[in-house]
Amino acid sequence: MDFKVLAHDKQTKARCGEIRIANHRIPTPVFMPVGTQGTVKTLTPLHLKEVNTKIILCNAYHLCLRPGEQVIKRVGGLHKFIGWDGAIITDSGGYQVFSLAKLTKVSDNGVEFQSPIDGTKLFLTPERMTQIQNDIGADIIMAFDECVPYPCEQDRASVAVKRTLSWAERCLNTHKNKQQILFGIVQGSVFRELRIECARNLVEMGFDGYAIGGLSVGEGAFLMNEVLEYTGNYLPQDKPRYLMGVGFPGDILDAIEQGIDMFDCVVPTRNGRNGCAFTSTGKVKILNNQYKEDLKPLDEMCNCYTCQNFTKSYLRHLFLANEILGLTLMSLHNIYYFQNLMQQARESIRKGEFKDFKANFLGRQSQ
Amino acid sequence: MDFKVLAHDKQTKARCGEIRIANHRIPTPVFMPVGTQGTVKTLTPLHLKEVNTKIILCNAYHLCLRPGEQVIKRVGGLHKFIGWDGAIITDSGGYQVFSLAKLTKVSDNGVEFQSPIDGTKLFLTPERMTQIQNDIGADIIMAFDECVPYPCEQDRASVAVKRTLSWAERCLNTHKNKQQILFGIVQGSVFRELRIECARNLVEMGFDGYAIGGLSVGEGAFLMNEVLEYTGNYLPQDKPRYLMGVGFPGDILDAIEQGIDMFDCVVPTRNGRNGCAFTSTGKVKILNNQYKEDLKPLDEMCNCYTCQNFTKSYLRHLFLANEILGLTLMSLHNIYYFQNLMQQARESIRKGEFKDFKANFLGRQSQ
Repeated sequence: MDFKVLAHDKQTKARCGEIRIANHRIPTPVFMPVGTQGTVKTLTPLHLKEVNTKIILCNAYHLCLRPGEQVIKRVGGLHKFIGWDGAIITDSGGYQVFSLAKLTKVSDNGVEFQSPIDGTKLFLTPERMTQIQNDIGADIIMAFDECVPYPCEQDRASVAVKRTLSWAERCLNTHKNKQQILFGIVQGSVFRELRIECARNLVEMGFDGYAIGGLSVGEGAFLMNEVLEYTGNYLPQDKPRYLMGVGFPGDILDAIEQGIDMFDCVVPTRNGRNGCAFTSTGKVKILNNQYKEDLKPLDEMCNCYTCQNFTKSYLRHLFLANEILGLTLMSLHNIYYFQNLMQQARESIRKGEFKDFKANFLGRQSQ
Repeated sequence: MDFKVLAHDKQTKARCGEIRIANHRIPTPVFMPVGTQGTVKTLTPLHLKEVNTKIILCNAYHLCLRPGEQVIKRVGGLHKFIGWDGAIITDSGGYQVFSLAKLTKVSDNGVEFQSPIDGTKLFLTPERMTQIQNDIGADIIMAFDECVPYPCEQDRASVAVKRTLSWAERCLNTHKNKQQILFGIVQGSVFRELRIECARNLVEMGFDGYAIGGLSVGEGAFLMNEVLEYTGNYLPQDKPRYLMGVGFPGDILDAIEQGIDMFDCVVPTRNGRNGCAFTSTGKVKILNNQYKEDLKPLDEMCNCYTCQNFTKSYLRHLFLANEILGLTLMSLHNIYYFQNLMQQARESIRKGEFKDFKANFLGRQSQ
């Protein structure tokens, strides 16, 4: 793996770079569509390539429950299994263990929980989640961390940070597949000293990249930006920084301004399936009656397959008729929108004009 | 419109030809995927082209209920509305009025029924269904007919034939959009004299093509082939013949042998969505446990996008995980399979070897 920062913005901490891993070259800041179960919902790998996707995020927790990491290993790894020759990052699933599973019991050793698929009792440890991710074979894998909900008492958050650090070390020690790089995850809720303690210790252990987890869980934009600002000061400049699970376009631009390089979020696909499109002039809720005979595309400025070929009138009809094609076309458009936004952000950073770009973007959205 | 028979098989009535209409050239025998509501379920128009689809079937009854023929007319016609620049045929929806609607009342004048969408009372006449199809603007439109269920008393079938003939004449007299061609529909259940009476009278009226309706409704392969055989003798050689709603590959080959040129059926897409793939060695039910770690494509002989890029193991995973991509990939494969079957059938007819082709096909399927 090689990460180079190629340009710094003049007025902000925004930076533009490239991650090279295996045969992949990933320009940063990068948006990674979410393919939890090994598919970015409703889209083929060809669709993803057409909308300039270089890397997708899959979820090791979901994939170890189904189809099981051994199946994926035996068929030759995740890229081969899902037919995607771009890059892949797997989340360890710390977040999912705490948010989705029933009857979760956490100890310093690991997490005991009941499979939401068949009720089986399972025990996940940092060692096991690292081995699972080694077997699954993504290009970038994540340490197993403890996520706390928001709001959270400082004592509770402190226990989770200590556990996250101890687990991070155990992940590092277990990580065997050297074709993969391993990222540590900074936790600490919205507490400055906890975030800094966590960041400092992870950096001392020496990871290939650093993620900031446990944000965008209800703390709001102000607190999130504050955490990003002070946490960023304790992360090395020469490693990629990944803000997990964020977010809406405005949140992403805020975080780019704080020096974040990598993003993932279900928003473009989930909102697409719910009939909501992101456009250069704001959101379009396709079921609105005003689009009944609207001959224009979702976004007249957009070059995606959906906007080049279909009207809002037709998309609305597909949603009213419960036709799957509507979900596909809206998801495709939204992913294109996010990838296009990132490309414009990178260009503006190279030109040293990120602040203007962001202000213009926010201005257009509020029209 | 121009229809030319380009080759006759040596041993059977099978024939190979071409329908030219507007800028479309449609080689026959042709399979027309079903896009009832203006979308072949789960597939983009680009997908349809990639699997060699030249013409799709939409349904005027469904489209007049939603979004309404006026919306489609105002946006510039069905091709433009659905983003499909291939050919389109619309069924008048006679079949749907009788099979789907509640509280249907049929009189010589037309059909009164309740909309299954919002309960509105509607009255459809041959004049109205022709005008709706003129407005929707497909390349080929169908007369409005009365369908009877199977089994059916001869007296009841006879009344329906008389009505179908009177309605056919009213459709001919109403049909104004001369860029479209109009097909008559032969009814008569499984009664030889009724089918012959219906065919003779329709031919006398002079349609651009002739459909055989009211089959594949439970009468079985033997009776269906019998009807096709004697009905075919009363249809002109120089007009296309369309067997509506058929069918499985074996049924289609039987009908091609009887001189049928056009087919439509939901089988490839519906079975695809239900996890059943057609392959050169028989059906594959993708949920079967035997495919859990199967690294092979659905069909090793197949060149479709699904078979070139994905394993049975992955497709099974997508179905178990309720992922829409599974429905799309299976539908795409099945449509490719049907289009490929038709292309092979056409080739075998040109070589005068259709009988051998069909025998080989059936032999492979039963392996």
